[in-house]
Amino acid sequence: MTSPASPERSAGRVAALRALLAQDGLQGFVVPRADEHQGEYVPPGAERLAWLTGFTGSAGLAIVLAEKAAIFVDGRYTLQVGDQIDPAVFEVRHVTDEPAAAWLRESLSGGGRLGYDPWLHTADGAARLRAACEAVGAELAPVAENPIDRLWEDRPARPDAPFEIHPPELAGETSADKRAALAEKLAERGVEAAVLTLPDSIAWLLNIRGRDVPRTPFPLSFAVLRNDATVALFAPAGKIDAALARHLGDGVAVEPPDAFEAALGGFAGRKVLADPASAADRIFRVLDEAGALVERGADPCQMPKACKNAVELEGARNAHRRDGAALTRFLAWLAREAPGGAVDEIAAADRLEGFRRESNLLRDLSFDTISGAGPNGAIVHYRVTPETNRRLEPGALYLVDSGGQYADGTTDVTRTVAIGAPAAEMRRHFTLVLKGHVALATARFPEGTTGSQIDALARLALWGDGLDYDHGTGHGVGSYLSVHEGPQRISKLPNSVALKPGMIVSNEPGYYRTGAYGIRIENLVAVQEVEVAGAERPMLGFETLTLAPIDRALIDRALLTADETGWVDGYHARVRETIGPLVDPDTAAWLEDATRPL
Amino acid sequence: MTSPASPERSAGRVAALRALLAQDGLQGFVVPRADEHQGEYVPPGAERLAWLTGFTGSAGLAIVLAEKAAIFVDGRYTLQVGDQIDPAVFEVRHVTDEPAAAWLRESLSGGGRLGYDPWLHTADGAARLRAACEAVGAELAPVAENPIDRLWEDRPARPDAPFEIHPPELAGETSADKRAALAEKLAERGVEAAVLTLPDSIAWLLNIRGRDVPRTPFPLSFAVLRNDATVALFAPAGKIDAALARHLGDGVAVEPPDAFEAALGGFAGRKVLADPASAADRIFRVLDEAGALVERGADPCQMPKACKNAVELEGARNAHRRDGAALTRFLAWLAREAPGGAVDEIAAADRLEGFRRESNLLRDLSFDTISGAGPNGAIVHYRVTPETNRRLEPGALYLVDSGGQYADGTTDVTRTVAIGAPAAEMRRHFTLVLKGHVALATARFPEGTTGSQIDALARLALWGDGLDYDHGTGHGVGSYLSVHEGPQRISKLPNSVALKPGMIVSNEPGYYRTGAYGIRIENLVAVQEVEVAGAERPMLGFETLTLAPIDRALIDRALLTADETGWVDGYHARVRETIGPLVDPDTAAWLEDATRPL
Repeated sequence: MTSPASPERSAGRVAALRALLAQDGLQGFVVPRADEHQGEYVPPGAERLAWLTGFTGSAGLAIVLAEKAAIFVDGRYTLQVGDQIDPAVFEVRHVTDEPAAAWLRESLSGGGRLGYDPWLHTADGAARLRAACEAVGAELAPVAENPIDRLWEDRPARPDAPFEIHPPELAGETSADKRAALAEKLAERGVEAAVLTLPDSIAWLLNIRGRDVPRTPFPLSFAVLRNDATVALFAPAGKIDAALARHLGDGVAVEPPDAFEAALGGFAGRKVLADPASAADRIFRVLDEAGALVERGADPCQMPKACKNAVELEGARNAHRRDGAALTRFLAWLAREAPGGAVDEIAAADRLEGFRRESNLLRDLSFDTISGAGPNGAIVHYRVTPETNRRLEPGALYLVDSGGQYADGTTDVTRTVAIGAPAAEMRRHFTLVLKGHVALATARFPEGTTGSQIDALARLALWGDGLDYDHGTGHGVGSYLSVHEGPQRISKLPNSVALKPGMIVSNEPGYYRTGAYGIRIENLVAVQEVEVAGAERPMLGFETLTLAPIDRALIDRALLTADETGWVDGYHARVRETIGPLVDPDTAAWLEDATRPL
Repeated sequence: MTSPASPERSAGRVAALRALLAQDGLQGFVVPRADEHQGEYVPPGAERLAWLTGFTGSAGLAIVLAEKAAIFVDGRYTLQVGDQIDPAVFEVRHVTDEPAAAWLRESLSGGGRLGYDPWLHTADGAARLRAACEAVGAELAPVAENPIDRLWEDRPARPDAPFEIHPPELAGETSADKRAALAEKLAERGVEAAVLTLPDSIAWLLNIRGRDVPRTPFPLSFAVLRNDATVALFAPAGKIDAALARHLGDGVAVEPPDAFEAALGGFAGRKVLADPASAADRIFRVLDEAGALVERGADPCQMPKACKNAVELEGARNAHRRDGAALTRFLAWLAREAPGGAVDEIAAADRLEGFRRESNLLRDLSFDTISGAGPNGAIVHYRVTPETNRRLEPGALYLVDSGGQYADGTTDVTRTVAIGAPAAEMRRHFTLVLKGHVALATARFPEGTTGSQIDALARLALWGDGLDYDHGTGHGVGSYLSVHEGPQRISKLPNSVALKPGMIVSNEPGYYRTGAYGIRIENLVAVQEVEVAGAERPMLGFETLTLAPIDRALIDRALLTADETGWVDGYHARVRETIGPLVDPDTAAWLEDATRPL
């Protein structure tokens, strides 16, 4: 995908926007990165923030007022945004340290109207903006047509790739059964229908996928699930061919996207469920104006989607074997090539993608590979560019975080490897991270436990040395869907969602020494019931799905307990036995050595 | 304190209440356990729930409608309530499984008015009741005078014990300095005044204590702190003698309780801070009616009160040495007397209180002692009565959870001891609990960490055996104030309050085998900054304050790591060296043996 960003044209575009706003009697306008579906990736025609500002990160928000403008980004993007935007046009603000609400309080004047596109903000997000406006006596005003769209002449058309069937032998349950189960719950709650706006919810419910955004097989669309188990799917007719229509069946009516608002308007006096944390503010406005009784609650697909069924889990295991073989081939190649100094970050990422593509089953990467050598490995969300590209040099660490989209599963794995001989300090830090990884991998916990409760297990060894990492320990992962999905997560942040059998999450503690090196060890794990002799409560634990060696050269065995050493040796034996038969003899020989007991 | 409870008169009292309600046009009335200050203990004249229902637990709520009535209690009291109330009058409901809101939805009729006393419910609590009423088209109606008070003829008078000085040499900071610091923060927020309704906040702010409720030195009163650092204290003049008036000084004006509402009414058009989680609904109604600008936020005393200063921490250490000596004498006595079968739960609790009183410095117990032998030890909130009193028998475990109020500190400690030789299973379970206790005692964690994040450390060893406990791991403790104080806690429940240096919390994992035995090991600990060589972040850890031996007979050394054994031996050495010189020779000899290395 080419980005519409042209930073050198940003000043002119902002001037044109200001002229439009003045015509419309608006004091300013809010431009988020999000599209109508609030996903991490958006199609090119929804890259309004990039078009206006030049900034191409995956999260951000700009606010343009008559006399000033600001762009708000998170810690991942504070460096990148400086390189991409025109500082004469935009002030840069850190979204949590200097939030938009505070900037609005000091910048907006009372009585003014700040425009926003109610399709691009969730109801919760719009409420926060509204509160900031009202605090200074200003008004947050929805616009009927986004002014960026009126200005953007060569705006890319909506993606026209057809939706695809996700077959029951991979989904493990028919859409009709999923719909019937959810419809029963809606009926129990006295709810007539649920509005679905998240593409992964719709993909899961209808057993379909799409190619509307990169890296994630999302079918961009809206849907309404009624409590009689029928669905109205709002999507262009051209995206649904005859086979897909048959797959959808009689219970699913395909309607044009234009018909969505009218359909919402038909719920006057009836109870409709919509999720204010993910559904567009516009949807709540339409429902309210129509006199619908809006029940605000979580998207009902999120929890059943998160709990993978037996068929999806078997698919995940297959995908991880295939993906582990590709990664193992890469690691063996790296062990041969990198010590000579001939490999750089871009070449490594390309080679890894090549091994994954050789399976002929890779649909896409599941995200842009993080390939970071030396100090670049310490930048948590690093993406290599020709300008930042570094050679993998002896004595350095190399961190590679990557994943694939396969029809049977989504993978996400990080390995950190020593190029040549590592320093003692690197080995100590790697081993502390490993202890955290093993603590989580081997934990047993009662039903009802949340990811917040067990997050510290992955940090305790680092804490003992006065160290930590500033990211979550684990995120949910979809089944041939988004590599980041909720509602569960393993994180410091409070979260009341219990881990449930079938949920797939990452286990990825790390350590980052700024300017020197980064370490992360990431496997995907599935929550499973575990039998414990004498247990008084139902207990859960994790099945590790990812299969690839962990660099023995970086493990300081003296820091491990016998149980931890046993875990590493057992895991490596499993990797050797499972992956060995799937790779070429040279790689198998390397693997044999790479997985020998500590 | 004698309770006003007379279950046999409950039916008559409820009938009289119903007659009053009918006169007043009310469909029903809500009777909470709480008084105007929302504390765990209330004075006899506020025991309205006990007077009406016979139930004497420390938390509960009754709702009386014309045709039916229910009492809602938590898991601690489901057995007790059944023994105390008249089942012909009250249905018993579990407050979380069958909440009052659900019962109201099925029991209230639309158009009716449910009465409540707005002094006895927090604003947040009243809002929840109101939502439940409005869901069925009923109204939650405040009453001007509580109908129970109109019916209760011999209602005890307000306690008249005078307030007492808490001297600066124990408080560590003058009230004037505390008031100046808080006033500055109020001024920064643009707030004119803060309404204080929690007795522990007022006690802390003014360096006073009281004797208005049992077990906790609370001076029941209201106060308003202005942003010029002056305070209006609303309390009967008779509770404040000349010395106390001098101690309060010029900045504190004592006004009669009757003047409180009028004072609130004086804030028309000005910003006033009040805490909807703790302040009475009535206060918000008065402020709203007066046209004050109400800022809803946390009681500003809570956080500085929770973070004990150096003088308070030194006081806590002194109190714990004194208390540890009394507990050690008790444990030595128990070791001599109990194996012969001559001791029962009541005798043990009385003997322990006796040892504490011999210091001549005990102001009160900090709560009613939990003294549970065998299966009674498995009842988490057990309080012995003549009916439940058990003998401590050989082969059984005995759990004693107790504490003292001293002018320099509040203590709370639990020890579990084997009477005679314990079974292997008891030793295994005790050692798993000990491992959790040690994990928390030795944890290092970065600044900003909450109690929720580290709760699992105390459970992990039990989880490995499929076991757990259904209570929090740690609660805050006051400085000669409440034995349960916030805002911090160590618990499974999400909590965003970071642990800060000076906070005192309990470390009390446990295990309970229903019908057999209970195990809990509780020490109080203070959060402190810790130096870690090479640390990249400010790190915190715990200083253990409680000093008393942990029963070696119950420790299975084979289950401990070398670090864990080292902690136990080091702790026991500290106990021996500190407590040994404070006790009689026989006890010292016993202590020498009880604390020898594992």
